[in-house]
Formats: sequence, C-alpha cells, structure tokens
Amino acid sequence: MAFQVDKKIKIAILGASGYTGAELLRLLLRHPAAEIVALTADRKAGELIDAVFPHLAGFGLPRLTTIADVDWTGIDLVFCALPHATTQEVVAKLPRHLKVVDLSADFRLRDPAAYAKWYGHEHHALDLQAEAVYGLTEIARDKIAKARLIANPGCYPTSALLPLIPLIEAGLIDDKSIIIDAKSGVTGAGRAAKEGSLFAEVSEGMHAYGVASHRHGPEIEQSLTDAAGHPVAVTFTPHLMPMNRGMLSTIYVQVAPGKTADDLHEVLAGRYKAEPFVTVVPKGVVPQTRHVRGSNHCLIGVVADRVPGRVILLSVIDNLVKGASGQAVQNMNLICGLPETLGLEQVPMFP
Amino acid sequence: MAFQVDKKIKIAILGASGYTGAELLRLLLRHPAAEIVALTADRKAGELIDAVFPHLAGFGLPRLTTIADVDWTGIDLVFCALPHATTQEVVAKLPRHLKVVDLSADFRLRDPAAYAKWYGHEHHALDLQAEAVYGLTEIARDKIAKARLIANPGCYPTSALLPLIPLIEAGLIDDKSIIIDAKSGVTGAGRAAKEGSLFAEVSEGMHAYGVASHRHGPEIEQSLTDAAGHPVAVTFTPHLMPMNRGMLSTIYVQVAPGKTADDLHEVLAGRYKAEPFVTVVPKGVVPQTRHVRGSNHCLIGVVADRVPGRVILLSVIDNLVKGASGQAVQNMNLICGLPETLGLEQVPMFP
Amino acid sequence: MAFQVDKKIKIAILGASGYTGAELLRLLLRHPAAEIVALTADRKAGELIDAVFPHLAGFGLPRLTTIADVDWTGIDLVFCALPHATTQEVVAKLPRHLKVVDLSADFRLRDPAAYAKWYGHEHHALDLQAEAVYGLTEIARDKIAKARLIANPGCYPTSALLPLIPLIEAGLIDDKSIIIDAKSGVTGAGRAAKEGSLFAEVSEGMHAYGVASHRHGPEIEQSLTDAAGHPVAVTFTPHLMPMNRGMLSTIYVQVAPGKTADDLHEVLAGRYKAEPFVTVVPKGVVPQTRHVRGSNHCLIGVVADRVPGRVILLSVIDNLVKGASGQAVQNMNLICGLPETLGLEQVPMFP
Amino acid sequence: MAFQVDKKIKIAILGASGYTGAELLRLLLRHPAAEIVALTADRKAGELIDAVFPHLAGFGLPRLTTIADVDWTGIDLVFCALPHATTQEVVAKLPRHLKVVDLSADFRLRDPAAYAKWYGHEHHALDLQAEAVYGLTEIARDKIAKARLIANPGCYPTSALLPLIPLIEAGLIDDKSIIIDAKSGVTGAGRAAKEGSLFAEVSEGMHAYGVASHRHGPEIEQSLTDAAGHPVAVTFTPHLMPMNRGMLSTIYVQVAPGKTADDLHEVLAGRYKAEPFVTVVPKGVVPQTRHVRGSNHCLIGVVADRVPGRVILLSVIDNLVKGASGQAVQNMNLICGLPETLGLEQVPMFP
Repeated sequence: MAFQVDKKIKIAILGASGYTGAELLRLLLRHPAAEIVALTADRKAGELIDAVFPHLAGFGLPRLTTIADVDWTGIDLVFCALPHATTQEVVAKLPRHLKVVDLSADFRLRDPAAYAKWYGHEHHALDLQAEAVYGLTEIARDKIAKARLIANPGCYPTSALLPLIPLIEAGLIDDKSIIIDAKSGVTGAGRAAKEGSLFAEVSEGMHAYGVASHRHGPEIEQSLTDAAGHPVAVTFTPHLMPMNRGMLSTIYVQVAPGKTADDLHEVLAGRYKAEPFVTVVPKGVVPQTRHVRGSNHCLIGVVADRVPGRVILLSVIDNLVKGASGQAVQNMNLICGLPETLGLEQVPMFP
Repeated sequence: MAFQVDKKIKIAILGASGYTGAELLRLLLRHPAAEIVALTADRKAGELIDAVFPHLAGFGLPRLTTIADVDWTGIDLVFCALPHATTQEVVAKLPRHLKVVDLSADFRLRDPAAYAKWYGHEHHALDLQAEAVYGLTEIARDKIAKARLIANPGCYPTSALLPLIPLIEAGLIDDKSIIIDAKSGVTGAGRAAKEGSLFAEVSEGMHAYGVASHRHGPEIEQSLTDAAGHPVAVTFTPHLMPMNRGMLSTIYVQVAPGKTADDLHEVLAGRYKAEPFVTVVPKGVVPQTRHVRGSNHCLIGVVADRVPGRVILLSVIDNLVKGASGQAVQNMNLICGLPETLGLEQVPMFP
Repeated sequence: MAFQVDKKIKIAILGASGYTGAELLRLLLRHPAAEIVALTADRKAGELIDAVFPHLAGFGLPRLTTIADVDWTGIDLVFCALPHATTQEVVAKLPRHLKVVDLSADFRLRDPAAYAKWYGHEHHALDLQAEAVYGLTEIARDKIAKARLIANPGCYPTSALLPLIPLIEAGLIDDKSIIIDAKSGVTGAGRAAKEGSLFAEVSEGMHAYGVASHRHGPEIEQSLTDAAGHPVAVTFTPHLMPMNRGMLSTIYVQVAPGKTADDLHEVLAGRYKAEPFVTVVPKGVVPQTRHVRGSNHCLIGVVADRVPGRVILLSVIDNLVKGASGQAVQNMNLICGLPETLGLEQVPMFP
Repeated sequence: MAFQVDKKIKIAILGASGYTGAELLRLLLRHPAAEIVALTADRKAGELIDAVFPHLAGFGLPRLTTIADVDWTGIDLVFCALPHATTQEVVAKLPRHLKVVDLSADFRLRDPAAYAKWYGHEHHALDLQAEAVYGLTEIARDKIAKARLIANPGCYPTSALLPLIPLIEAGLIDDKSIIIDAKSGVTGAGRAAKEGSLFAEVSEGMHAYGVASHRHGPEIEQSLTDAAGHPVAVTFTPHLMPMNRGMLSTIYVQVAPGKTADDLHEVLAGRYKAEPFVTVVPKGVVPQTRHVRGSNHCLIGVVADRVPGRVILLSVIDNLVKGASGQAVQNMNLICGLPETLGLEQVPMFP
C-alpha cells in the first residue's frame, strides 16, 4: 500500500463493452498505477460508457471508439477482450511497442493443428502465437515477467490447473485418472444476446454443456502435458449455473501408489504457501464460490474419498476475476514491473 | 384419463408442513383417487394450511393436528414425511391396516450396522425395516406392488440409480469406476430454518457438501451391490445449487472391455422404452433440470468421453417430484392397485 | 372433472416458440377438450418442438411450420401469440370460421388514434378491432362468450383491473388518485434474445422501466374509463424483477368520502365470491406472487394505510397464466361453450 | 488517495457475525486509517472469523469474543450492529471515551413515545437518545462531525430521505402526497435463521410486508417533519425482492402549484452536485440497483408522470453499503476527522 507510482501505465482496452471489459475497468479504476486512455467497442463506438455500463458512469472514462480510431502513441499496454479469430487479426496489426494481455483464446494453444481443429480455422498469426506466454501467473511467473504478449488463461483452465499442476509435477497422481467436473456462473458466456443466456433460460435450473467437446479441454491438457512431460488427456465437463459469478471445479484423481490425500494437501499447501492469491484451505474445509466473489483469489480444498486411492479436489475462483480480468491485471503488473498484487486487494464480497 | 374411481384412497400425511409435504398435497389435490383426510405437523398443530402454505388455501384441506390426534380408523394409507429416527418410532406405533409410504431414510438401509454407522444410533424398528421395500419404482415394481411399507428412495439415489442399475446388470461398465458428481436445488435441504439455507447464503454461489460423507452414498451402494451381486463402492459428491428444484447427476464410468457409449445408450433406451416416467434422450442431447421441473420425469443422457473407454451419464429429475413426493405417489398407485401414472401427468413447467 | 368431451376443439397456435406459446402448450396438453393440430414459428419452421422446448418433447406435438403452411380446414380456434403489427396482418387473412384468441396488443385499444400513438403506426385492421372483445374474463364474461375474436388482456392490466374495476363501479375510490406500482417477472419480456433480458443483466438487481410511458398504461385507462363512465388517468410504473414468473401490482388509492378500507374489502370480496380464479384474501393477509405460481389465480389483498383515506391494494398473478396463456384458455373455454375452468385446475407450485 | 495516516483508529465491532458486520469488515479491511481490534458475537464467541465468514479468512482478524470480554482501553470507536433493545443496554455501559456508530434502530427516534409504540417497550437510555445524532450524512454532516454517538439511519429511510428532504425544504412538493413504494434485497432481513428468509421462500417470487406498519415509516416521517417544519405523514410499503443486495424506492409526489419535474430535477441536481456519494442521473435515465452494488452510492432519477402534477422519484442504494455499513464508515470518517470518502472508493460490481 505504500507503493509509490512514478509513472502511470497508459492502457487501452479493446472490446470494452463485455463483462470482462467491465471487470477490467472495475479493477483498473482503483489501480494506483493504471490510467485508462482508450476504450473500444466496434458496434457501440461513439457511445459514452454511461450508456454501456451505467455503473461506471462518473469515473471520467473515455468514450468508446473503434479500434481504427485509437491513437497508439503514448499507449503502453493493451488488454484485448475480443472474440477469438478477430483477436489475432487485431493483435497482428498493433504496433510492437505495445505490451498485450489477450483475454481471448487465440494465443493459448501452441499447436497450430490443435487450434485449427478446435476453433475451426487456420491460425493467421503463428509468429505471435509463438511469442505468446500462457499467463497462468503462479505457474509461469518468470516467463510472464519477461513477455510482451500474454495469452491469459481461460477460466476453466485456471481453476483446474492451479490444483493439478503441482500434483502432476510431484508425481502424486495418476495422470490418466483425471476427471474435472466444472461449474460456472453465466458471465462466462459473455454479454452477447443469445437465447441460451436469457434469465428465463438460465435461472431455476442447470445443465452440462460442451460435454466432451469444450474448447477448454485441450487448453487444460496442454498445460498438464507440459507438467507431466508426456501427453495427458482429461475428462472435462462444464456446467452452467444459475448465478452471475463463480466457478467450482470438482476434480477426481487417483493417487499414485502409496500416496494419500494428506500427501496431496501437503504438497499443494507448500506450493502455494507464499502466494497472495492461492490458498489451500485446511483439511475438512470445503471452499465455496461465494468466498471469492469479486476477488482474485483461488481456494483449493483436498478431501480423501471413501473409495481407496481416490481424492477429490475442490477449486473455486471468481470466473471474471482470477478466471479472466483479475489474472489479466496480475499479469499486467508482472510485465510492467509492478508489485503483483497492485490493484487486486479487493476483499471478497459476501453476500 | 378414462379411469373410473370406485372408492377413494383415504390418506394421512405426517409431517405435512415441509416441502415434500407441500408437494404431496400439490399432486394429491388433483389425484382422482385420493382423498386427504388428515395432516399432521407437531409444531404447527392447530394451524390452518392457509397459514403454513398460503398457496394451498382454498382447497378445503383439513387443519393440521398432532400425530396423536389422528383417528386412524378409515384411513387407508399414510405418507410419512418426518425426520429419520422419529419416523421409525412413529411408524412402529401405526395400526397394521395402514399402508405406509415413508419418505425418510429410516427404512432404506437393510443392514442395521450400516444404519447405525451413518445415522448415529441403533435402529429401533428392525422388524419394520425387514418388511420395507425400497421403492425405486422402475426397478422394483413387482415387489412394491405387494408391499405394505415402502422406503421411498432419496433424491440423489433416484437420479443416480436409474441410469446405473441397468448398466451394471448388463455388465456394461466397470463397477469400480463409478463417480457421481451430483447437483441439487435447495429444497432438498428441507424447510428447517437453518443459516445455511438462507437466501443470502445460497444465492449467487455454489459449493460441494457432505463430500465423501453424505448418507446417500451407502444408499446408492446398497442398490448397486444388489445389481452387481458383489460389493460396489462409489465416489459421490453432492453440491448445493442456487435454485429451488432440480437435480442433475453427472456420472463418470469406465465401460467394460470392448463396449462403447452406444452400447450403453442402447441398453438404457431399451430398458426404459415403455416407462412413462423415464426417458433416455437421443444421442447428442444433454438433458437440463428445467426440462423436468414440476414433473415426475427422469431424463437420461449418454455421452462418449474423449478419454477412450470413459462415458458420461447425465440424469435429471425434479428432486421434489421423482426424487420424493412424485415417486411416493407413484408407489402409492402401485400398492393400491391403481394405474401407476394416476395423478402424475403434469407437464413440466418452463420457464 | 366429470365433464364429458363430445368433440375436441382443434387448435392452432401461431407464434408457438415463445414463452406464452410454451405456457399454452403446458395447459392445453392436459385440457380434456383440446387437440393441438398446428404450431407455427416462422423463424423456426421445420423444427421439432423437442428442439425448441425440450420439456415438451414426447407429447406427440406437431412439427413447427410457417403460418403460410397451415391448413385451416378442420381447425376450430387459433391462439395468436405473435408480435403486435404482425398480428393484425395475420389475423386479417385468417378464414372467418376460426375463433381467435389473440395474446398480442393489436386489438386491445379501441381508439385508433390511441393505437397509432402508442404503437407507432396506423392500425391496418380496424374492422377486426371493432369486432374484438377485450377478454378480461371476470369483467366481460357475457360478451366474451358471444365473441369470435378476443383481445386477451396484457398482464399488467389484468393484475390492476381486477381489483380496481369493481371499486370504481361502486364509486368507492377517487379515480384521480390511482397509482399502480407494478412488478413483473422476466418472462413478461418474452423470449427474444435482447441484452436487457440476459441473466447477468437481470439477476441480483431490479429497476423500473417504461416509467410514465409503458403501453399498458393506456390499456388500463381504457377499462377504468369504461368502468367510471368518464376519462380516468392513472400513474403506472412497471418494474423488472429477478424472477421468471409472477406479477404484483401494489395499488394506492384514495377512498371516496366516508368510505374505508373495510368497505373496499367487502365490495371486492362480494364481487369475486363465486369466481373460481379470483380470491380476495382475508384482512391482514398479504398475497405473494409465489402463491399463484403456475396457476390461473389472482389473489387480492386490501390494507388500510396509516395516512387517513388512503388504501393499499395488492394484486398478484402469474404473468404467464392469468396474465397471458391461462386467461387465453379461460376465454377459449367461454367462446367454445366449455366449462370455464376446464384445463385450468393446476394447483400453484411452491416452492 | 494521497492521504497520510498518522494514527490508525482502533475499532471494535459489536455483533460482527451478521451481514452488516461482514460488510463493515469488507470496507474496513481496506480502509487506510482503520484497525480492527475487537469483534464480538455473543452466541459465536470463541470462534474464528474463518468459521463465521470464510470469505474473510486470511486477513488476520481477531477471534470473536463476548462483549464482556472486550478490553475497551485503547479502543477509539465502536460500531454497534446489535438488535434493538439490546443495543441501548450495551451502549449505556460503554466507557464514555468511545465514539459510537450504532446501526440499530435504538437511537433513531427522538420521541420516546414513538419509540415505545413502534418497538414495544420503553426506552431505557433516554439520555443517550438525546445525545445521539441521526446520521444521514449528506443532510446532517456538520452535526455528525461533532457527535460522539451516531444513530445510523435505516436502509429504507436513507433511500427515501435523500431525494425527499431537499424537495420538501425547497417547498417543491405537496408533503401530504408522498407515497414510497420500496423494494429491498433479502440481506436487509439479516442473518437470523428464519423460515421467511430461506432461499426457497424468497426466490422466484416477491411480496409486500409490513404494509402500513413497518418501523421505518415513523423514522422517515421524523426527518421529513424536520425538513417541513410541520408534521408529515407518508405512505410507505416495503417489498422483499429475490436478490441479496439492493434497494429501490419508487416515490410518488404531487408537485407544488406551478412546479414541474424539471424544477425538482434541478433542485436535486444542484443540492447533490458536489456530493461524492449521491448522484442525480440525467433526465430520461432510470437508475437500477445493480448500478450501485457494493458501492456507497445513491442514484436518484426524476421522471414527470403522465398524470399532470405528479412526479416519480427513483432512488437506488446498496442496502448493505449506503443503507448500512457504508454510511456507518462515512460517519466514522466524519467523527474522526478523516476525509469522508476514505475507504469507500469501491467501484460498483456488475454483474
């Protein structure tokens, strides 16, 4: 809190009219080293933020423009919150002096064939993809700090990878046994006006979607494969919850021979002991999504199953914060040489 | 619909002031062969139903009384919606001419040791437990039809057993691989005024509870063990959802060697083809809890996972209907010799 | 329930893919004298109802078609659930042998100038408008019974007019004092994919909309003017609630000199004593929207204010049932000479 | 933001286990001049905050104690979040060196007879009541700054008084015409485990309560009477909404002869122009509760009704922030000589 700001980072947000855009603004408006100088939203260009996000009226934010109308001189960093495919075209045209934190999926998959398969078209900026660093902060901090272009992780991967990577690295689990049953609030689907996101279609009910076919599956596998040193495949089932924010991954794993839930707890607790945003809760405690609402925290619980050798991991985040905009700001802090927690000290809001 | 009612079943509901009581009333008030003659609620004895359930005012329902004040003469059948432990004491004192459909857990576990372990005290009506038939209608129809005392299944077991039992019986899955990730609306927790059930504690968030320790675990295992002919243990994780009604069990299984998701779909579809209340949805369709809201239906989906040999089963019910009061009425129909669907033809209510 | 059906009414629903369409289907599928023979939805023509409303799969409903593809021979009655403007064009082309219950606003306002002002264009079927009967069933039962074309009332007008009309007719209130503060569930906004109806825009918050400018204002005034015999203007403020179904109108009135809240209660209770779907709750009771969820009921409460001479009326309905599809079926029953309650005996669903 | 803290205010929160307690902690944990040294919760004394509010684990908060166990030496200020009646007994025993911000109703009504009538018992600390200053910050800033004991206003009064007081003071409205139709999220009912606050009793529905009999009615009238210089009575109807946070007061007033909605807008806009937490939105804009979620803001809208002479005021706050804990911190800042906005700069959280 005693951090002295010499010079503010000048920031543009591309695609500012969606929920991750709003969340970036919420965080950056109170970030002591951030100055928001440009906001784009092609379809809403010309509008005041007051119309698009009335809760952000009165903060002196710039008017929405098109991307074409942004003057990049003087801008230091861009948050890119555009749809995939569009993103790679836009980022390819940005001046190279800009640091970029990209919240889309466009630079997350290193394998061009995997990208083409899961996103339905060839990648058109493979050089940028090669340059990009996958920004799961607690796992890749050093590489992130040196990067220019960050591929900010998806919300599901963030919640699943934080508990799984240290366990795989430590050889504590059978990496063929991983089943991720994940549940997300609706904001993960974005602000597009789709029938399936209507209040009456979402409230008072729930369902799985993208079963065995969600694009975050290969993203999770890529990082687990890195951790294991050999290909890892997982079962991943996302579910849509009748709530705005929050994500819970309930993860089922088989422990390595001779290992126990206590071993897993110990390794995870040790791994994240000094981390400001990841907490392994005590044995016997079960984290809830509402315990991290509005904050950049991830809580991880470890429970021994009644079936011998099986362990249940529970990982909660706010999908809009640690699962998107919060981690993006955390990465911005790193690549700008700022204290990592700057602007991210929000206390969770409950109820 | 052309069913001719000769004589109405005279019914008492014990513990009528909770949510399963309300749901029994909703169903029975439109059941052409049911006549509700007594309602008990010890703490609210003396009150009109108008005060306890204003939505049921105006239907001429009897005033709430204590159990002690019920005149059993002339009553044919009792729905018992009391807490466990209390239930066995109450049922033990009921006249033997009464048919009983019990919605508590008291007569579900056949093994007295298991009951004592999971419910924390010795069972005090073991003769009744021996007499009771576990009322998962589609699985035990013949035995139910001849029974006097029905142990109505729990909501989680109903949603998990309907897809699993036929698969185990057919030898299609590895019964050591079963993982049940279940999600329930809040009404499953009942109407007791507990902090954890408050709106502000439940809305806009979710969490697992009873992880590896929920009492419906052994109930599920008992039926799967019956189906397999040898002990089956399962992983079972219930979650509390911010919604009133609805339950989804996402079930992960390993298929038997050489079998596929299509084989599982075919067996389930065949098994439930003629069932009025269980539907196996077409391949590629994912059922949602809101598709069965207010109805006695169970929808089952089958999806092949990307991990070879793994299959994902999705089973949805309304926890208050097929998961409790609806199945109770279905069982009443059976033990009273009525058409099984009588009074249960509700079309799901969406939105 | 002993009603003997000689011949079923053959029914077409135009615009069946919205929420009022779904609700008509829910009610008509259990209506003993209804047979659904055609369903239209221009943009979804060709689709099975299973895709549009999975909760209605399995009931043998016809496939969706365009309006142009409907064979009107053999059809007795049409429910029209189309947008305004479109409606008048469609209804004008329907064969005259068809009875029509129209759920749009197109035939509600008798004054062509008022229609043009509030709906932004001239009315193109003034002869039909002249023929139409405003279908507030309890108020206009006799005229409805003889009509061919029913203008089914809006949800807000239904909830406000049922308590107000008898009081105005009896001269019990100052008709210049009426303030209607109304609150509605989201389904009133329909199933169109609009940003403002998204879950994340609606949940966990509320707001007024159409303040002093909502189209249901003049609709309310037209009926109150009829009741008073002179022009009546009202204050009407609708609010959007984070819930699917339900509507509450909190209505503030000044009593006529010498009159009291008790007088108002007595007149309303007397007026609706024999009505199957309108209930005046006892003094001291406050109705809740959830007490009528899924049913065709309207509950009305009357409370004396602390400010002398002022009375607070509380009127609740399910906006999709008595506020739309239920009243439409009630009107169908009337114009087809069936018992008015046929197919509308649903017990409210709570929780 | 450049505020230099010389010495932190040492703070005790009495009754810290409720929702206003949680909200005080959320705000104070990030308040640069606040240090939380004691937390009490008689029934939960001895527990860690981790058990009571898991979202506040990890911030190093003190363990809960009884009030009797608090060492008042070294404490500067007490937030009292206890039930009424209990409060006056507790505050009467506190050492006089303590500044007190009381969130209960105990010191809000100046007239002992009114207190006795509305709260059902004589007031037992009339000297303290005489000392207390009613803490509607924007209205009584100067008196608050000099006070030792603040009666923090109720949520409903805060939302209603902020728009009404300036209009009454300016003689712009007929003070006999005021009708306040208010809607609140559930947290206003507190964390007590009551049946009426259960998720299943609150979600998917709404209702008025305390109609013409809510205790915030006389509280509102006291302040309006002060503003008018003669007795003012109002109609006040609170409603319970299916949401956690947020309050909207829709207020109907008759303008004084010759005045218009524009006059009202102008006076309110002028009155609150320099206020950091009260904003009069532009003509034509309708504020929503979600625009102030989690923030200390009040937004006020002014709309001319279609009925001549009538104006509709719309006032939104977060009931837990400006309606309770936020205004309490604002008042703490004032009585401690700190900048009024310190620790209250939260950007609203949407969605």
